[in-house]
Amino acid sequence: MGNTFGHTFRITTFGESHGGGVGVVIDGCPARLPIHIDQIQFELDRRRPGQSKLVTQRKESDTVEILSGIQDGITLGTGGRASARETIGRVAAGAVAKQLLKQCFGVEVLAWVERVQNLEAIVNSDTVTLEQIEENPLRCPDPQMAETMIAHIEEIRKAGNSVGGVIAAVAKNVPAGWGEPVFDKLEAELAKAIISLPACKGFEIGSGFAGTLLTGQQHNDEFFANTEGKVQTKTNRSGGIQGGISNGMPILIKAAFKPTGTIMHEQNTVNSEGENTTIKGRGRHDACVLPRAVPMVEAMIALVLADHALRQNTQTLIIS
Amino acid sequence: MGNTFGHTFRITTFGESHGGGVGVVIDGCPARLPIHIDQIQFELDRRRPGQSKLVTQRKESDTVEILSGIQDGITLGTGGRASARETIGRVAAGAVAKQLLKQCFGVEVLAWVERVQNLEAIVNSDTVTLEQIEENPLRCPDPQMAETMIAHIEEIRKAGNSVGGVIAAVAKNVPAGWGEPVFDKLEAELAKAIISLPACKGFEIGSGFAGTLLTGQQHNDEFFANTEGKVQTKTNRSGGIQGGISNGMPILIKAAFKPTGTIMHEQNTVNSEGENTTIKGRGRHDACVLPRAVPMVEAMIALVLADHALRQNTQTLIIS
Amino acid sequence: MGNTFGHTFRITTFGESHGGGVGVVIDGCPARLPIHIDQIQFELDRRRPGQSKLVTQRKESDTVEILSGIQDGITLGTGGRASARETIGRVAAGAVAKQLLKQCFGVEVLAWVERVQNLEAIVNSDTVTLEQIEENPLRCPDPQMAETMIAHIEEIRKAGNSVGGVIAAVAKNVPAGWGEPVFDKLEAELAKAIISLPACKGFEIGSGFAGTLLTGQQHNDEFFANTEGKVQTKTNRSGGIQGGISNGMPILIKAAFKPTGTIMHEQNTVNSEGENTTIKGRGRHDACVLPRAVPMVEAMIALVLADHALRQNTQTLIIS
Amino acid sequence: MGNTFGHTFRITTFGESHGGGVGVVIDGCPARLPIHIDQIQFELDRRRPGQSKLVTQRKESDTVEILSGIQDGITLGTGGRASARETIGRVAAGAVAKQLLKQCFGVEVLAWVERVQNLEAIVNSDTVTLEQIEENPLRCPDPQMAETMIAHIEEIRKAGNSVGGVIAAVAKNVPAGWGEPVFDKLEAELAKAIISLPACKGFEIGSGFAGTLLTGQQHNDEFFANTEGKVQTKTNRSGGIQGGISNGMPILIKAAFKPTGTIMHEQNTVNSEGENTTIKGRGRHDACVLPRAVPMVEAMIALVLADHALRQNTQTLIIS
Repeated sequence: MGNTFGHTFRITTFGESHGGGVGVVIDGCPARLPIHIDQIQFELDRRRPGQSKLVTQRKESDTVEILSGIQDGITLGTGGRASARETIGRVAAGAVAKQLLKQCFGVEVLAWVERVQNLEAIVNSDTVTLEQIEENPLRCPDPQMAETMIAHIEEIRKAGNSVGGVIAAVAKNVPAGWGEPVFDKLEAELAKAIISLPACKGFEIGSGFAGTLLTGQQHNDEFFANTEGKVQTKTNRSGGIQGGISNGMPILIKAAFKPTGTIMHEQNTVNSEGENTTIKGRGRHDACVLPRAVPMVEAMIALVLADHALRQNTQTLIIS
Repeated sequence: MGNTFGHTFRITTFGESHGGGVGVVIDGCPARLPIHIDQIQFELDRRRPGQSKLVTQRKESDTVEILSGIQDGITLGTGGRASARETIGRVAAGAVAKQLLKQCFGVEVLAWVERVQNLEAIVNSDTVTLEQIEENPLRCPDPQMAETMIAHIEEIRKAGNSVGGVIAAVAKNVPAGWGEPVFDKLEAELAKAIISLPACKGFEIGSGFAGTLLTGQQHNDEFFANTEGKVQTKTNRSGGIQGGISNGMPILIKAAFKPTGTIMHEQNTVNSEGENTTIKGRGRHDACVLPRAVPMVEAMIALVLADHALRQNTQTLIIS
Repeated sequence: MGNTFGHTFRITTFGESHGGGVGVVIDGCPARLPIHIDQIQFELDRRRPGQSKLVTQRKESDTVEILSGIQDGITLGTGGRASARETIGRVAAGAVAKQLLKQCFGVEVLAWVERVQNLEAIVNSDTVTLEQIEENPLRCPDPQMAETMIAHIEEIRKAGNSVGGVIAAVAKNVPAGWGEPVFDKLEAELAKAIISLPACKGFEIGSGFAGTLLTGQQHNDEFFANTEGKVQTKTNRSGGIQGGISNGMPILIKAAFKPTGTIMHEQNTVNSEGENTTIKGRGRHDACVLPRAVPMVEAMIALVLADHALRQNTQTLIIS
Repeated sequence: MGNTFGHTFRITTFGESHGGGVGVVIDGCPARLPIHIDQIQFELDRRRPGQSKLVTQRKESDTVEILSGIQDGITLGTGGRASARETIGRVAAGAVAKQLLKQCFGVEVLAWVERVQNLEAIVNSDTVTLEQIEENPLRCPDPQMAETMIAHIEEIRKAGNSVGGVIAAVAKNVPAGWGEPVFDKLEAELAKAIISLPACKGFEIGSGFAGTLLTGQQHNDEFFANTEGKVQTKTNRSGGIQGGISNGMPILIKAAFKPTGTIMHEQNTVNSEGENTTIKGRGRHDACVLPRAVPMVEAMIALVLADHALRQNTQTLIIS
C-alpha cells in the first residue's frame, strides 16, 4: 500500500535507487487540463543532485517523459482507457500473480472456451491441462468440438459477422479458508474482476443459473470423508466457495462474452448532429473474442486469489 | 471518507456533539483476542471532562457499551458475520441511498421475482411499479404466475424441501455518464454487490448468458433519435451500460439465487470427528428466499448507483 | 476490510446473528438531504423473516433507530463532527488497540504533559510509568513541576484565560521492522494521527526541530552491541524510526497543543451580517486541554502501531 | 480510482489505445519471489491480436519490459524504495498538481529555506515570490542571510560534516472550505505528506510549537471585516486552517530537516557479525539537503491540496 498517496487525486510512484527507471502514475486528474511538460522538468531540475556545491554532486539526468494520459498537451481523462489494449497490464500482472500462487501455494488457474454461440464443448475441469487448452487456436480443450467451432467462426468471419460464448475456468488447490464473509466475499470479488473485462455480460460461480432449476435436496453438496480421511463434497455445486470463503474444493467459474459490436454490416445509428443514419464496420474485425479472453479470465482470477491469499495470512497469523 | 482511520486495523467513528450517541466501529481486529471492557472505560474516564478544576466542568457519562463483535470477553473475528441478519444494515443503508437517488437524480430502483425454479413470470421492466411488486407476498408482479409459484412453494415447503430462482431488477432514469471505464466499471461494481448477497450464484447485465446465443448482427443495440430528438437504442441488450458507463437507457440486471441449504430431509455429512454420518434440518426453514432477497437486491443496486452518482459529480464539475 | 462497501457513498455494517445489535454507518452522504425514517422501516419490513408462510417464521423486530447524523429529518453532513466528543470513539478504539499491542507484542504506549506554556517538566521516557502519570490530575509525572504547573493553570483559569503546551509520548518494545519506506512511513502516519487531534499544531519525532541545531556529526545515533550482544543506539535522536521503519529503540514523539480558543475575555470578531463587533466566552471553559489530551495521544499512537503491526505480519509471513 | 484493482496485492494499469505505452504497477508483491519474465511474455502472447484468423489481425508487439522492482529475477520488495530517487515521482506529480491548482483555483504553493542550523532568515510569506526563492542556489529569499548561510554550509562541507534546518512554506489563495473535520483534517494530511519526506523530523501548522508559549488571549486570531467587507483574521496563528478546514487565509507550514547522516568522519557502529567497529563516509555527500527539499515540500503540499480540492467539489455540488 505504501506506494500510493492521496484519495481523489492519487499518485503511485515506482522505481528504486539503482533500477531501470523511476516514475509516477497519477490517478484522478481531471480531463482537458493543459499540462506544460517544461514546468514538470523545471521542478525535476530543482530537485536534482549536483545543482551547486551545497548539495551532493552525483549526476542524474531526470528527464521527464509522459507515457500516457496526455495528448496535444491536454489530459485525456479516462477517454481512451476502455480500450482492449488496457488489458495488457492486467494480463502481465496476472502472470505475476500466477507465479506467486503457484510457488507459494501450489494454486493453478486455468480457463478455456466452453461454448461458442450454441456449440458446447465437454471438458472435465478436474483433469484439463494448459497443454490441452493451447492445442488449438480457439483454446477449447475438446478437440472434436473445437474443430466444429473453428469452422463455424470461420463462416461467421467471412460473413462479416461475429459470435460470443462462454468461458469456463477452474482454480485448483485453493486451500480452504480464503475469502471474507460479508461484502468482499471471494465469489463477489471474482464477479467484479470477471465482469470488468470488455464484452463480459454474465458471471456464474458453481451451479450458477442452472442451479436455480434444482430443489434444495437436489442442490446440496453432501460432505464425506474420503479414503484418506479428508473431508470433501461429492458434488461441487457451490463451486468451491461457501458464504464467501473457499472450502478446499476446486473453484469453478463461468463467464458470458457477447458477440463483438464491430461487424461488417450496415447498421442504423445516430450521427454527431443527432440525425438518423447508418454505419458499417471496415477493415479487420474480431469474429470471436473468446480465445483472447481466455488469458484475461485467468489473469483476473489469479489477481483476486493472490490478493486474498496475502490478506488471509494476516488473520491466520494473529489467531494463534 | 473522513470518519475512518487506519488500513488493516481500521476504525470508523460516529456521533456528534449533541446527537443520540457517539461510538466507533473497529474493523480488522484479530479474532480470539481477550478484551477487558474496564480498560476501555478507564481510558474514557481519563478523556472525560470534569475530572478536575484544570479542565472543563461539563458532565458527560461516557459509559462504554459493546454492541457486537465480542462474546465472553473474546473478539469473535468474522465468525458470526456471514449471517442473513447482517443484511439488515445493507437494507437500511440502501433505503437511504434510494432516497438520495430519488431526490437528487430522479432515479428509481425496482426488483422482483422473475422465476421460481422453472416457473417464469412475464414482467415489463419499463412499466412495472412498486405497488405491483408488493401486491403479493412473493413480490412477483405477474399476478397469475405468482399464484402458481406460491402454490408450488407451498408444496415444496410442506415436503421439507426448498427452491431458488431468479430475481430481475431495473434502475430507471439513470443519466448517461455514470461509471468508470476500467476496473470499476458500473456493471462490475453491480456484479460484486449482487453476488455478495447470501445464496446468490449468478449475475447478468443486459442480455447476459442468453446474449451469447445471438450473432453480433442480432445482438447490437441500434441507436436512433426519438421524436423529441433524444438518442436512444431500439433494443437494450447492453442493459443500460456500455464499456462501464451508463448510456441513459434503463439498467437491467438478473441474479440467480440457489435453493437454501437447510432442508427437512436426511442428508449425508461428516461429523466433527471426521466420521461419515447424516443430518436433518429441524424447525422452521426458508422454503424460498426470493421474496426477502428482493429488497436486498434493490438495496445493493441503490448503494452502487449512489456511490457512482457522487463520484461522477467530481469529474463533471472539473471538466467545465 | 470486509465490512465496508462503496468508495464515496460508503457503508460499514456491524453486528452478528446473536449479538447485541446490528447496524450500519453510512459515510459520504451529502448534507441537508431529507431522510424519511418510515421509508427505511418499510425496507426493513420487506426484508424481515416471518412476513408470510413462504419464508422462515422466525420473529425479528428490526426497528430502525438513527443514532447520529440526522437532525429534524435532515442529514447533518459533517457539521457537528469536529467536536471534542468525537474523540470518545478514538479513545475507545485506542483502548482496544493498546490491549492488542500489549497482549500480542508486549508494546506499551505512554503519554504525559511535558510542558505547560513555558514550564517544562523533566521526565525520563525510559522509566516513566502509567502510575506516575496518573498520580496528579495534570498527568505530568514530574511531581514538583506538576504542582507549579497546576498552580499556574489555576491562576490562568481564574483570569478567564487559557494555556497550551507540549505532550510527550513513548512507545516501548516496538520490534524493529514495523513501518513502510515511502508515503506510509511509520512517522508519517503518526504525524497525521497526532495532528488530527483537536488543537494540535505541531509534531516531532525524535530530535524534531531541536535536532536541526546540531551538525550531522553531533546528531548521528551511533550503533553499538550491548553486553548481551543486542544492537542498540547510544542516543535516540531518530526517535526509534529510521526511513519509515521502526529500529527497535523506543519511539519518541512530541505534540504541541495550542491554548484553547474559548476564553472569558472580550475579543474582536465579525457578526453574521459581516459587521465588526466583539464576543466574550461564557460559562465553564477548558483552561488547559493537556490532561485530557494525554489519553487521546496514547490512543492515536496505539491505533497507528496496531495497524502497522497487523500489516507487518503479512509481509513477514510471505517472505519465508 | 478506476485504474487500481485489489487491496493487498494491488495493480494499477496505465496507457491508452494510441498512447506512448501501456503498463502496470504491481503493489504488495512479497519480496524474494522468483519471477520468470518469459511466463509474463507467454501470457501477453496469448492475449495478443493476430494469433490466428479467428481473432482480429492487428499487429501489436507487446514485448514485456520490467522497469523496476526485480533484480536478478527476484522481487526486491520495498528494499530500495526509501531512496531519495523515489522523490522524483513525487516532484513530477506535484508539478502536475501545481498546474491543476493554479489553473482551476488560482492557488500557488511556495517553499523556501527559512533556517540553516541556527542561522534564521527573515521572509515575508505574504510577498515572497518564486523568483526571489530561485535567486540563489540555497533557495533562501533573504539575500543577505542566504550569503551567510551559504558560507556556513561551505565550511561544514569542507569539514566533511553536514547541517539541517527548517523549510517554511505558504499556500496562497486557498479558498475557505477545503478539508475535512475528523481524521482527514487538512493539517493532518499535510503533516503526513511532509513527514513522509526523507530526513524530515518535525511539522508545524501556523503557530506550531511557539504558539504553546502564548495564552489563549494572546493566541486567538481575531476576525475583522476588511475595507472590501471580506472577513479576515488580523493574525494568522491558525495557519489558514481551523478544525481541519481551510479558512481562506494563507496556509503556513514549517518542516524540520535533520542534518544528513552520511558524513566524512569516523563513527562508531556495529558490523554484520554484531561486533563493535567504526565507519567513515566516502566520496561526495550532501552537506545540506535543504535546497533540494524545497521543491519536494512544495510538491507534497500541492498533492494534498489538489486531492482536497477535487474531494471538496463533490460535497459542494450535492448540497445544492
